[in-house]
Amino acid sequence: MPLFTGVVPPVVTPLNPDFTVDFASFEAALNHLVDAGVHGVFVLGSTGEVVFHDAEIRARIIDHAIKTVAGRVPVLVGAIDMTTDRVISHARTAASAGADAVVVTAPFYTRTNQAETIDHFHYVREAVDLPVVGYDIPVCVGMKLTRDTINTLARDGTLAGLKDSSGDDAALRYVLSDLKDLDGFFGMTGSEIMVDTALSMGAHGVVPGLANVDPHGYVELWNKVQAGDLTGARQVQERLCRLFEIVWIAAGRTSAGAAGVGSFKTAMREMGIIATNTMARPARLLNDDETAKIRAILGASGLIG
Amino acid sequence: MPLFTGVVPPVVTPLNPDFTVDFASFEAALNHLVDAGVHGVFVLGSTGEVVFHDAEIRARIIDHAIKTVAGRVPVLVGAIDMTTDRVISHARTAASAGADAVVVTAPFYTRTNQAETIDHFHYVREAVDLPVVGYDIPVCVGMKLTRDTINTLARDGTLAGLKDSSGDDAALRYVLSDLKDLDGFFGMTGSEIMVDTALSMGAHGVVPGLANVDPHGYVELWNKVQAGDLTGARQVQERLCRLFEIVWIAAGRTSAGAAGVGSFKTAMREMGIIATNTMARPARLLNDDETAKIRAILGASGLIG
Amino acid sequence: MPLFTGVVPPVVTPLNPDFTVDFASFEAALNHLVDAGVHGVFVLGSTGEVVFHDAEIRARIIDHAIKTVAGRVPVLVGAIDMTTDRVISHARTAASAGADAVVVTAPFYTRTNQAETIDHFHYVREAVDLPVVGYDIPVCVGMKLTRDTINTLARDGTLAGLKDSSGDDAALRYVLSDLKDLDGFFGMTGSEIMVDTALSMGAHGVVPGLANVDPHGYVELWNKVQAGDLTGARQVQERLCRLFEIVWIAAGRTSAGAAGVGSFKTAMREMGIIATNTMARPARLLNDDETAKIRAILGASGLIG
Amino acid sequence: MPLFTGVVPPVVTPLNPDFTVDFASFEAALNHLVDAGVHGVFVLGSTGEVVFHDAEIRARIIDHAIKTVAGRVPVLVGAIDMTTDRVISHARTAASAGADAVVVTAPFYTRTNQAETIDHFHYVREAVDLPVVGYDIPVCVGMKLTRDTINTLARDGTLAGLKDSSGDDAALRYVLSDLKDLDGFFGMTGSEIMVDTALSMGAHGVVPGLANVDPHGYVELWNKVQAGDLTGARQVQERLCRLFEIVWIAAGRTSAGAAGVGSFKTAMREMGIIATNTMARPARLLNDDETAKIRAILGASGLIG
Repeated sequence: MPLFTGVVPPVVTPLNPDFTVDFASFEAALNHLVDAGVHGVFVLGSTGEVVFHDAEIRARIIDHAIKTVAGRVPVLVGAIDMTTDRVISHARTAASAGADAVVVTAPFYTRTNQAETIDHFHYVREAVDLPVVGYDIPVCVGMKLTRDTINTLARDGTLAGLKDSSGDDAALRYVLSDLKDLDGFFGMTGSEIMVDTALSMGAHGVVPGLANVDPHGYVELWNKVQAGDLTGARQVQERLCRLFEIVWIAAGRTSAGAAGVGSFKTAMREMGIIATNTMARPARLLNDDETAKIRAILGASGLIG
Repeated sequence: MPLFTGVVPPVVTPLNPDFTVDFASFEAALNHLVDAGVHGVFVLGSTGEVVFHDAEIRARIIDHAIKTVAGRVPVLVGAIDMTTDRVISHARTAASAGADAVVVTAPFYTRTNQAETIDHFHYVREAVDLPVVGYDIPVCVGMKLTRDTINTLARDGTLAGLKDSSGDDAALRYVLSDLKDLDGFFGMTGSEIMVDTALSMGAHGVVPGLANVDPHGYVELWNKVQAGDLTGARQVQERLCRLFEIVWIAAGRTSAGAAGVGSFKTAMREMGIIATNTMARPARLLNDDETAKIRAILGASGLIG
Repeated sequence: MPLFTGVVPPVVTPLNPDFTVDFASFEAALNHLVDAGVHGVFVLGSTGEVVFHDAEIRARIIDHAIKTVAGRVPVLVGAIDMTTDRVISHARTAASAGADAVVVTAPFYTRTNQAETIDHFHYVREAVDLPVVGYDIPVCVGMKLTRDTINTLARDGTLAGLKDSSGDDAALRYVLSDLKDLDGFFGMTGSEIMVDTALSMGAHGVVPGLANVDPHGYVELWNKVQAGDLTGARQVQERLCRLFEIVWIAAGRTSAGAAGVGSFKTAMREMGIIATNTMARPARLLNDDETAKIRAILGASGLIG
Repeated sequence: MPLFTGVVPPVVTPLNPDFTVDFASFEAALNHLVDAGVHGVFVLGSTGEVVFHDAEIRARIIDHAIKTVAGRVPVLVGAIDMTTDRVISHARTAASAGADAVVVTAPFYTRTNQAETIDHFHYVREAVDLPVVGYDIPVCVGMKLTRDTINTLARDGTLAGLKDSSGDDAALRYVLSDLKDLDGFFGMTGSEIMVDTALSMGAHGVVPGLANVDPHGYVELWNKVQAGDLTGARQVQERLCRLFEIVWIAAGRTSAGAAGVGSFKTAMREMGIIATNTMARPARLLNDDETAKIRAILGASGLIG
């Protein structure tokens, strides 16, 4: 049985206008997810603007998440930083706080090859007594975790699972197939728009940022797949694809990252879940025009009146 | 007059076998450079494995560098991290310690566009009372500082200079020409092998990692250019190009970064300047075979007997 | 109703050892496909090594294909060349010969932007009275046909369909959804390993090079999807994924293209369908060692005894 | 002694409004170059829109060039096409017509690796009794000719020289240095803006598209370098850098290629050298606004009154 399965949203980290964490909104965001029936939460991921938070704030975010979730679902924690030792430090914080797993990328800024990346995961796994989930996100890290690397690290007991945000579903398919017999291993897609297909090809779960906005949709999609209703799942997926168009509204004016996470935060603010759409600087916040376009899409999706 | 000119090597950070900083070797490396006549030093750059050192260790490295150099030449300090606020924190440490300038990249992991990157540099400049040098290194950061971005930031007083490690000498040429009339502004190349040409097209200095191994060579090259002897400069450059082949010896087995900085450290160890060729993990260290090849090149260059 | 649907393999062009076309083997390859129940054939695609054949040979290949197929299934013909006018010339040849459609990429070598690419397809469509299928293959052409470009060209009647070999299934999904209401339009994936998922998300067909080797497998997969048996389809797909591993056997020694098409030709030779595994020069042919590995995979797949 | 040296412009191919070649303008363009003192001409290069012309038209262009130049300077001819056999066919045409050398890229559309690319050049060289110049232009071809590949092909007698349009001057420097002792071999840069530096590091010539507009400038630059006046050369280069800004005027609206060659043609038309700025379709022609901006730059450079 895979260690984790289901819908595990990467939770946004709501901010106050002064860039401090808005913990009340964070609590609301977490409850919004858990109440909607998600099967886990992933805090301090890219969608959680993890790299903008220093070690102390990260510790408070983790504590807050674990206390708010209170065992209702597993809490996966991103231990994401530039180097092996920094990752280990964050991972230890997560372990002490009672996280259920840590999610770890390859090192970045200084490039490593696949062999050095394998060593990196070995070092992390040896340092913390917690399941380690590989996080494949080349668009942030500058390299891909190859099929061979994932297989090696899964087979030798280093990686408990994979979160694949590479967009390379063909490679994910081979990994899922290669490791089908490996007890406990799970592979999840980070895609918002290829969820039904990823699940139909054997993925064990999904980590969509858009689930911050519409967790019920992804839970419904998951349930339909579990019930064998792939046609129904596809219909839900297509509705979510239309909703996902919010992420392109500010693109061009802002960076892709700010347009994406910023659209989630703006939508959540308009839905009354969190208080602001503030992002860590220097991201450009979504403006009134862009908000109006997001409201139109939310309205068409039935998420606001 | 440009704020800084000349040969400003990015100093390696020697490590003990247990990965702590070997400050005695660091002192030796700094003195090796200053005694050879370099015109400044750049500590905590990519060659200095900056991202592997936490804030506390960085502070000690900065202090140590400034005390060792003791005003003989300017000390530029890398304030390199993933986000604006972390950069500001490192920059303040450098300012307090008496650094002459900080060297800053665009944010990374979370991608920013050019407009957000301009804001990033504004925030940093407003936060620290120290010259800020833009560090253009797309291979680590994932984006290029465009000609327009550099020009904007130089003209509005944010950037005192540029360290260009993009390899795009044509873009550098336009920036140098665009800003020729801007008092104080300087542009330096991070290349090891296009130094004579960069200087002949107007660059004000050079920041070559290879100068850790052969500072006399780069000082000689600089002096020949200053004396108008471009033919002589070219001959020195070509000798240095042959020496630079050490960086490819371990490539393939290690990542490009480890092969490069690792070759500098290995050469310096073989020359008796520093004690080990240890790099921060998970970089793979250069082995005996690779060391033998490096010794052969050092011998051919007359750097060892 | 979409103009074409189903399994439409891109047919290899068998060669004699002297690099001339082996028309007897070509006929055998076509009959192997049609007899297996494919729903169309695509001749002179990338898998057909189209660019290696001059206009005269292309005309003979087209004639031969149309006569051999003899109306049993539609014949799509690649009109693939560097420039608009050359494409038009090839397209006219196809039209004269009685092809059912032409398949056309963006121009290459000289890069065009999306607007110029739209004009390119307009010119082609105006010049030939035949359905034009857009062929999105960035790995060969150097640019992607964007969602907006496809939508524009489909809505204005220029493109009758899309063959997507970009690997970007998320973009394909949006195109399929955007154009769901457009009568006649069809979208097919060029993937070998994401066929069940592409079909489940609305693709109208599939153009897998591997179907040269195992057309029965892809027809079986198609039939299961049509029957609503997605679980059965997935099982067939997973068997085909294992078979597809033949394409990586020579990779490294040869280019990716030669390793892929070369593995198809080698497998077909070993299965007794065609006479040689010759590819157009300068591709390196698969050798005996590589052939042995391909035989092992064919054996495991039950395709040879 | 290198086989060719000096300024060897890649000549534009002027077109009539109906896209046929305007041979009168072509003759004028060639005479404009030769009269300005260039040391050779390169017809049917990327700037000459080579791929838009079929074999018959190419033959006429070659004949016309050779007759117009009439032995005053060498005529290098691009034999640029997708595959080895097509290249050979074009190369034979050039040889028959009396060309002094053929200029050849790696194959494209179908990707080849370095080993297959080496074979490609071997086949071409064996087929034609004419010097073969390697043309490294990754932006069109999708791959780089590596240092090892160039060295291998130069040492075994296949390549007489290199035209480097890769923008990687550091790699060019190593090739020039590696082959310094190889009698006859020449390396030229395709850059417009790194000519003084390329020459100062040992390049034997330059192939700048901008020389169509200002051949006197590049000849002056060359002469200053020959006279040892690198400071004077740099001043000329900087003036040419300002002139080169014409290539970005239409960028965005048109593709980069159309913006570049289109700006050369527009400038030449405004200077009265050729009759139209027509480019092969689907390139978007420069419009009146863009022409006005080009006129302003030409005026500032003293090229029009």
